[in-house]
Amino acid sequence: MHFTEDVKEALNHKYSDMADEMKAQGRDIISLCVGEPDMKTPEYVIEGIYEAMKSGKTRYSNCQGVKELREAIANDVNKTYGSDYDASEVMITPGVKPASYFALCSLLEPNDEVVIISPYYLSYPSNVALAEPTAKMVYVCLNEDLTLNEEALDKAVNDNTKAILVNSPNNPAGSMFTKEEVEVIARIALKHPNTYVISDEVYEKLIYRGQIHHSFISVKELKDRLVVVNGYSKSHSMTGYRLGYALANSKLTKKMALYAQQTITNTSTPMQYGALAIYNHPWDHIEPYNDYLEERMNYFHTELNKHPYFNGKCPKCSFYYWVDISASGKKSIEFCDDLLEKVGIVATPGVTFGEEWDNYIRFSIASPMATLEKAIERIRDYR
Amino acid sequence: MHFTEDVKEALNHKYSDMADEMKAQGRDIISLCVGEPDMKTPEYVIEGIYEAMKSGKTRYSNCQGVKELREAIANDVNKTYGSDYDASEVMITPGVKPASYFALCSLLEPNDEVVIISPYYLSYPSNVALAEPTAKMVYVCLNEDLTLNEEALDKAVNDNTKAILVNSPNNPAGSMFTKEEVEVIARIALKHPNTYVISDEVYEKLIYRGQIHHSFISVKELKDRLVVVNGYSKSHSMTGYRLGYALANSKLTKKMALYAQQTITNTSTPMQYGALAIYNHPWDHIEPYNDYLEERMNYFHTELNKHPYFNGKCPKCSFYYWVDISASGKKSIEFCDDLLEKVGIVATPGVTFGEEWDNYIRFSIASPMATLEKAIERIRDYR
Repeated sequence: MHFTEDVKEALNHKYSDMADEMKAQGRDIISLCVGEPDMKTPEYVIEGIYEAMKSGKTRYSNCQGVKELREAIANDVNKTYGSDYDASEVMITPGVKPASYFALCSLLEPNDEVVIISPYYLSYPSNVALAEPTAKMVYVCLNEDLTLNEEALDKAVNDNTKAILVNSPNNPAGSMFTKEEVEVIARIALKHPNTYVISDEVYEKLIYRGQIHHSFISVKELKDRLVVVNGYSKSHSMTGYRLGYALANSKLTKKMALYAQQTITNTSTPMQYGALAIYNHPWDHIEPYNDYLEERMNYFHTELNKHPYFNGKCPKCSFYYWVDISASGKKSIEFCDDLLEKVGIVATPGVTFGEEWDNYIRFSIASPMATLEKAIERIRDYR
Repeated sequence: MHFTEDVKEALNHKYSDMADEMKAQGRDIISLCVGEPDMKTPEYVIEGIYEAMKSGKTRYSNCQGVKELREAIANDVNKTYGSDYDASEVMITPGVKPASYFALCSLLEPNDEVVIISPYYLSYPSNVALAEPTAKMVYVCLNEDLTLNEEALDKAVNDNTKAILVNSPNNPAGSMFTKEEVEVIARIALKHPNTYVISDEVYEKLIYRGQIHHSFISVKELKDRLVVVNGYSKSHSMTGYRLGYALANSKLTKKMALYAQQTITNTSTPMQYGALAIYNHPWDHIEPYNDYLEERMNYFHTELNKHPYFNGKCPKCSFYYWVDISASGKKSIEFCDDLLEKVGIVATPGVTFGEEWDNYIRFSIASPMATLEKAIERIRDYR
């Protein structure tokens, strides 16, 4: 492949690595860049994986994924959304990122177009370029208030569009599509003969009290042209384990399984068996965690906006604080470099989530309140 | 990508799945097709992974891999081969297959040529096609006695050759390159300005008494143009865990890490920490297992060759029995279909390891002696 053209470095990783280096040199760095919940993996998951290993569930598994887990996922989704998925429509992947990447690898043909709604999860453009180097990417920017620009989307999608890539709840913006917006996107996709919606819904459980997540699964007519990717990284604090899945029509999951077979073989077998425990336990750790997130988010939002450089809206979900830094006179990379250099705080430049967002930066606030207070303290006098 | 052209189904998986279906229908099937050792993962690995999870080593890790593990691998390799690898020259991957695949993704540019020594590990052609659809693949067939055809290799490699893909100890043939053959391949690569050797040495520990594995690591002049891929699937019976690594120059490992960052993020963090236990324990489970493999291999070879259809040589390593079935008058797929249909035994058609090997099939003998005896019993009257 044209490696240098096709594979860009993700700026959140770059800044995280820079922070680690500076910490190793003895500098006191506050890292607010990587997107991981700060809770522990539930014990029953750890015990489930341990039991799987001890009982010899350690051999190659079906490339599409362990059937029991695919069934459990389908059942859970059906219970939540009244859908009718079965195990043949689930593909297990080593994380959520590979779920959308494998879908793109299996869907895209030369010269296909892909519409990416911006701000987007930072790996999408590289994912598309790696999956099909000739694919044309078309970006549709959300309005400044993070609502959908229906007209722009309608214009961007055409009969060559193979996929619309969406991410709601949104990383980095902490916004969520309304029911109407979800329906509009589905309707625009269905106007064309081959257009899929690839919907990354990994933050669906990390939403604050009173908020509702609207999944594309609810749009029944879309099912055959829908890929939903999800996993346990955020809901069960399993970022490092690498376990996710895609829901898709069985023709597409078969292609994804074939792709997996020839490149990674299968997702870790004991991880998959261990994850079965997730469906035998209530997910009651999430609500208190969301409350704790919201408390910290409110604090961070209120305090940060007292500073003249920052102009943000309080998000409804997740642990990302997305904030306009135009008042600083700086662009996002320059701003993040300066913030790191002057006060030792690591954030992620907005430009990595879409060119149009170069006057924004993203903070991840999944850190103890004391850390956030220390960060606010340092930022107070930052100019 | 051109999915249908580029991604072929691996026949070992196809036959394994067929066997599973027939078993589910109540048929008594003996499966001798999938390449997995029939020993347990050492307990210290399981406990190591458990400890890692319990102590919170569960978050995203460096995309190149956990540094302690990369150091442990480099130290172990240096102790074995007198080399001078360091952690920057190790890339951790979720299995050995992704190690060679990620290397191909990072190395290949449009229209590069790749030389594949045949019989080859069945995923290589798909790996090359997926990594770079325009790459030209050139196959160099081993001689009938499984020795290297130096003249053919020399002719096949030219200044456009980006990589020579080799696999010794060889799956499917159970053969190993001599020291001289390793040196010849290295010399041919080094005659050209950009030619790497990608050497898959995952079977290096599964060799019988008195045999010596010759690693390409021993050819010091090759180091900058060498990628060695390896892992714990076979030596520590960790096939389903998905953990492997590549040794390569640090420029290439950086590219591989970037590829990982944008597609899978990182290899499972608790798996990597757990694998550290491998380097704190003697590998004394392997020799008795090899003795047991050799005993079964001798039995299977001797008994199978009493049948007029089979003409094989006893291998020196691994659990693969590679056998000429020309005397049956059938090609390999027809033969395997017939064997499954008539006596319920699953083997892998030779043609999946290279077109020239359509008169061979592969048995995996990593099954209890009683199973092998039952298989031989059934084959005895097969015509």
